[in-house]
Amino acid sequence: MKARKQKQLIPELILGILAGNKTALSKAITIIESTAPKHQAAAKQLIEGCLPHANKSIRIGITGVPGVGKSTFIEQFGTLLTQKGHKVAVLAVDPSSSLSNGSILGDKTRMEELVKNELAFIRPSASGDSLGGVARKTREAIIVCEAAGYSHIVIETVGVGQSETIVHSMTDFFLLLKLAGAGDELQGIKRGIMEMADAIIINKADGENIKAAKLAKTEFNRALHLYPPKDNGWIAKTITCSALKNEGIEEALDLIDGYVTQMKETGNFVSKRENQQNFWMLQTIENSLKSDFYNNPKIKIALQEQLKKIANSNTSPFQAAAYLLSLHK
Amino acid sequence: MKARKQKQLIPELILGILAGNKTALSKAITIIESTAPKHQAAAKQLIEGCLPHANKSIRIGITGVPGVGKSTFIEQFGTLLTQKGHKVAVLAVDPSSSLSNGSILGDKTRMEELVKNELAFIRPSASGDSLGGVARKTREAIIVCEAAGYSHIVIETVGVGQSETIVHSMTDFFLLLKLAGAGDELQGIKRGIMEMADAIIINKADGENIKAAKLAKTEFNRALHLYPPKDNGWIAKTITCSALKNEGIEEALDLIDGYVTQMKETGNFVSKRENQQNFWMLQTIENSLKSDFYNNPKIKIALQEQLKKIANSNTSPFQAAAYLLSLHK
Repeated sequence: MKARKQKQLIPELILGILAGNKTALSKAITIIESTAPKHQAAAKQLIEGCLPHANKSIRIGITGVPGVGKSTFIEQFGTLLTQKGHKVAVLAVDPSSSLSNGSILGDKTRMEELVKNELAFIRPSASGDSLGGVARKTREAIIVCEAAGYSHIVIETVGVGQSETIVHSMTDFFLLLKLAGAGDELQGIKRGIMEMADAIIINKADGENIKAAKLAKTEFNRALHLYPPKDNGWIAKTITCSALKNEGIEEALDLIDGYVTQMKETGNFVSKRENQQNFWMLQTIENSLKSDFYNNPKIKIALQEQLKKIANSNTSPFQAAAYLLSLHK
Repeated sequence: MKARKQKQLIPELILGILAGNKTALSKAITIIESTAPKHQAAAKQLIEGCLPHANKSIRIGITGVPGVGKSTFIEQFGTLLTQKGHKVAVLAVDPSSSLSNGSILGDKTRMEELVKNELAFIRPSASGDSLGGVARKTREAIIVCEAAGYSHIVIETVGVGQSETIVHSMTDFFLLLKLAGAGDELQGIKRGIMEMADAIIINKADGENIKAAKLAKTEFNRALHLYPPKDNGWIAKTITCSALKNEGIEEALDLIDGYVTQMKETGNFVSKRENQQNFWMLQTIENSLKSDFYNNPKIKIALQEQLKKIANSNTSPFQAAAYLLSLHK
């Protein structure tokens, strides 16, 4: 009875989402995020209902260490979008939130204005015990937000573990927020993040910081030019801004608009999304194959033995692998 | 009868290798590189015999685009090592060699002096139809060279496909050769390679090129400082050299020696090798799991259907993955 009731509820929920109803949208994301088995069929039905209406937004990933001013930036950036008549949804990827018991967007006071804005939708980060799970939930939340008519989806990450790679793999544009002056050591940016960025924005370029921010901009631009251009022909750009003083936000939006225009003209916008979708399918398959293997009780024991044999030069990594694979058949 | 004869030959071959006999070493590598099923047991026996005597060398990876002067550099660098009484083996990873029918070290005239040197061993690159296969062959060739007493193993790659990542994952020190003046676009260095490098050496710093090389050195050093330091605490360094005029080669060796000393003091030398061994075991397992899946005839057909459904927004990547996994059980 209950299952049938829920089955009837989903088409209603989809209609609510398509009408742009925020309550329906919130409910849908809750179902997507649920790990309860009874919600899985409902989530599937929901996604299938939303998919034909999705895919029309611009997806923007934002990363930067705590203290760089991400929330203030998103508050100003989101407000600017709504002033231009756009609808903006803010999601977050924070695989640590289930451990620390506090999601990065959980503290809603951090985006005081945007959270009250009619044209904005802010959702605390999905928690989860695996990055794969968090990735799926976030990807599917994007789909329902798009079906609800949000034209810009901002996905924030604090950069724990592989979360930047995940956000980079589900967005059209990837933005790295930095501070001037502080060394990279202090800023804790992981290797590889700079190469992912489509733009670096140096925040807090105000007051006494302006000179340092301009210097940092020159340095980063120089460094970015040492990289070969990306496959899509884009060369990452650096600008400065002050989210606090609402300066440079328009420039950031122009930069993103310029990127999107260029990518749509060259066909790279569509092909990047196709690649991302295929990536997520293959990624999900491969994660599942691996977890099947490593959770096999026979393998668990034998793996430790083989690692010891390798460490003692009694076998080579390739021979150890062949032996373990023969056990899994 | 034949198999038994071969079985008796292997212990003899191992004795030859341990005595530093180059003919035995060459034969052993040929067996390792062979794809003939009859050689697989022999290769296993060979590796097991060599492993206890391996692991004592310094493994140096060298990459750079064609024309950067890799062969000339290795000729001078290898000669310097032998002048100091070291034994040097030069191997190559070139996954394209089976296609282009010409391996990068096949043209032995390119290292005229080194090839005649008593203390040097030069082996044309292993060919193979998969990167995984080339990786295994090269890793196992390292083991037999080490058992034969080579104290320095140089592994060259032209950087086709993922070959740099492979060489980086099997060496202690990774060297990127560059030219001054030419833009990165022209030099064709792929994204991510600069972050892998432990040192960048700007070659052809001679004659009219000296000024440009010094400028490039400053620029690269500045760029490298923008990266966070590697986990092992090493900050990549840039130097200039002229392999042609035999200038700066000693400095390159000093740099590598300094790195090795520092890494051994901090324990990072050993732990990096352990990580690499475990990486290769896991990598081999995962490649095999994936190829089992994607070569499953049922999957081959269904995968194409699901990709179409994703492209037409009829299913999500996660749902497609779940469906395909259910077929593979």
